[in-house]
Amino acid sequence: MAITQSNIYESLTEQTAIALAIKLRIFEEGKVLYCKEIGDGNLNLVFHIYDQDEEKSIIIKQALPYAKVVGKSMPLTLQRATIESNALKLQASIVPDLVPKVYYTDESLAITIMEDLSHLTIVRSGLIDNFDFPILSKHIGEFIAKTLYHTSDYALHPFKKKELVRQFSNPELCKITEDLVFTDPFFNSESNDFEEELLPDAVEIWQDFKLKLEVAKLKKSFLTEAEALLHGDLHTGSIFADIETTKVIDPEFSFYGPIGFDIGQFFANLLFQYITSKEESKKEKILSYIENTWHVFSATFSELWKESLDSYTKVEGYLEYILDKSFKDSLGFTGCELIRRTIGLSHVKDLDGIEHYDERIQAKRRTLDIGSFLIKERKQFSSIDEVIFSLKTFSKERS
Amino acid sequence: MAITQSNIYESLTEQTAIALAIKLRIFEEGKVLYCKEIGDGNLNLVFHIYDQDEEKSIIIKQALPYAKVVGKSMPLTLQRATIESNALKLQASIVPDLVPKVYYTDESLAITIMEDLSHLTIVRSGLIDNFDFPILSKHIGEFIAKTLYHTSDYALHPFKKKELVRQFSNPELCKITEDLVFTDPFFNSESNDFEEELLPDAVEIWQDFKLKLEVAKLKKSFLTEAEALLHGDLHTGSIFADIETTKVIDPEFSFYGPIGFDIGQFFANLLFQYITSKEESKKEKILSYIENTWHVFSATFSELWKESLDSYTKVEGYLEYILDKSFKDSLGFTGCELIRRTIGLSHVKDLDGIEHYDERIQAKRRTLDIGSFLIKERKQFSSIDEVIFSLKTFSKERS
Repeated sequence: MAITQSNIYESLTEQTAIALAIKLRIFEEGKVLYCKEIGDGNLNLVFHIYDQDEEKSIIIKQALPYAKVVGKSMPLTLQRATIESNALKLQASIVPDLVPKVYYTDESLAITIMEDLSHLTIVRSGLIDNFDFPILSKHIGEFIAKTLYHTSDYALHPFKKKELVRQFSNPELCKITEDLVFTDPFFNSESNDFEEELLPDAVEIWQDFKLKLEVAKLKKSFLTEAEALLHGDLHTGSIFADIETTKVIDPEFSFYGPIGFDIGQFFANLLFQYITSKEESKKEKILSYIENTWHVFSATFSELWKESLDSYTKVEGYLEYILDKSFKDSLGFTGCELIRRTIGLSHVKDLDGIEHYDERIQAKRRTLDIGSFLIKERKQFSSIDEVIFSLKTFSKERS
Repeated sequence: MAITQSNIYESLTEQTAIALAIKLRIFEEGKVLYCKEIGDGNLNLVFHIYDQDEEKSIIIKQALPYAKVVGKSMPLTLQRATIESNALKLQASIVPDLVPKVYYTDESLAITIMEDLSHLTIVRSGLIDNFDFPILSKHIGEFIAKTLYHTSDYALHPFKKKELVRQFSNPELCKITEDLVFTDPFFNSESNDFEEELLPDAVEIWQDFKLKLEVAKLKKSFLTEAEALLHGDLHTGSIFADIETTKVIDPEFSFYGPIGFDIGQFFANLLFQYITSKEESKKEKILSYIENTWHVFSATFSELWKESLDSYTKVEGYLEYILDKSFKDSLGFTGCELIRRTIGLSHVKDLDGIEHYDERIQAKRRTLDIGSFLIKERKQFSSIDEVIFSLKTFSKERS
């Protein structure tokens, strides 16, 4: 892996992306290379480059100096490319099989060249298309447990931990989450985006002061609690997988925050499938993914905890306290993600892809209800089984 | 105020300190200057420089590149001098009357030249000598409320807050607190220091797993919760005062931490006087200082809260939640400070200055009891009046 910082920023094109791959001798000499820009163009350019025999392929990702959100352009520094490549490298040192390999980074060009994962499926699309991901929950449980434990105060010398807190300070991308996940959906904000039929439901949320008080506490946790280095955007669109492989991508939102946040975002994005699916067997499968993710997370984290050199980790009840706090936090963050993806700015295909209008509105109402319920009642739950049971009861009551 | 960074570090002597004052033209030309090193020599050199007519005087404080603790020397970077001078300047922008004026700083020499406060009394010594400080609790309540509010997420743009979190990252001095306040006193650690008679009491603490679980939570809060820019070492030895003036000095431990920490350290260092005093009127006075500090803090913080542009500050119950959390945290931190100053490495004159041996041991036992009680029972308290009442009952029960 090489790092150079000698260049001045310029956006790549399909031609200059190929030229860069050639210059770096990533492919065998003499091969004809093809390139296609496959990014959604909101925050980054993503080039897929492959040779004439399709024997080798890579991804070149380049951060753009702005973010396109609903047509408007918002200036954004390129620092997030550095954050992303540093996070990928750090994660690779902890869970090498669960992240794409990084071949090359260039800070001033905001470029990361990495393993092509296009033989795998984006989990969000796969779930919508009823694919099975039998190993996904085990892998994500391990990913969360290992990356969070190994960057926490329980694993690191306090100097190293504080150095990482500084290194991964990520004000710009955190602000996107602070606004779009924790604030705008809970107020009558311009950025919100939802069908007219949902206005009464949105108004109910904006006027629910018990709910807003709980979201205030969750936002405070996001703003102040530097427990571990989070992925920061762990939804099902950030995960490539098949039946035996899982790769977590796009950690540009990475920063030191509360452990429950990554867990909650993953739970919520699985729950969209529980909420929208009509088949009982699929609903059961999704709930089993959630249940297993938590069990693997807590078992793996507990096992790692035994390695800690921090004297307090030997004190009875402390591990249980940390797990219980992370659990309740994660339910709250799940609720925030459910709500913001329904009435906030940034939507998900799980909901917006429902073609039948009335069905879509019904699914979104259920999402808002479950979101509010989890936020307000999170402290009543002490096990994932209780949550699963409650979700099933909840669905029956409202159906 | 000038800042230069052109020098290479060298310890000052009384002679070179005078030479620096002359070079900077701080005194009138032609005056004969006198200088005395008055620091305790643990972490810093402190020079008191005054002219022949005693018309003008200044303090030159220089950080040493090591810390002397019980004879051993521990290397320490000079970064804390930068932290201290930056904290003093930031505090001066918020509470100009409650901190010493800074005339000059030099980062590479680790020097801060500031207002001489020797006409005032160090509060710890003053309290031991039965001085009255009628305005102290009002001033410290305001100092805490204003410095903490104005550096919190409620007052600052998220970018500015995160910039300050980075700027005031203070790993070395935080580690001193992490070890000496939160860890060593609660384990059989080499650094602990206490009279042989207290061994059974210390062993009781080391074996009290309910207590240690609560200290683990408080240490976690100290390690992870970046709520506001703390002074970080707000004991009565860090405050100069008389009957109408209060000046808070020495913010070299400054960093982003939980709001309750500064409050707790101040409470604990007042409580030493409550515990050791034999006169009922003095005991009442000390309790009234504690009570008033909290009332001024919460009233001032609540008033400032109204200025916040954060939408969630308008949500009913959120301010009360923050105040209640800070209150309970502060009682826990009070307990940690009481215990660590009794059996930990760094002691206070309030306790160690008691000449009669049995009395001293008795006072220390009471300190440990109250410390454990506050840590374990902090969540039962919802007002400062309840705490005061409980302290009085506590004293009677044990006397």
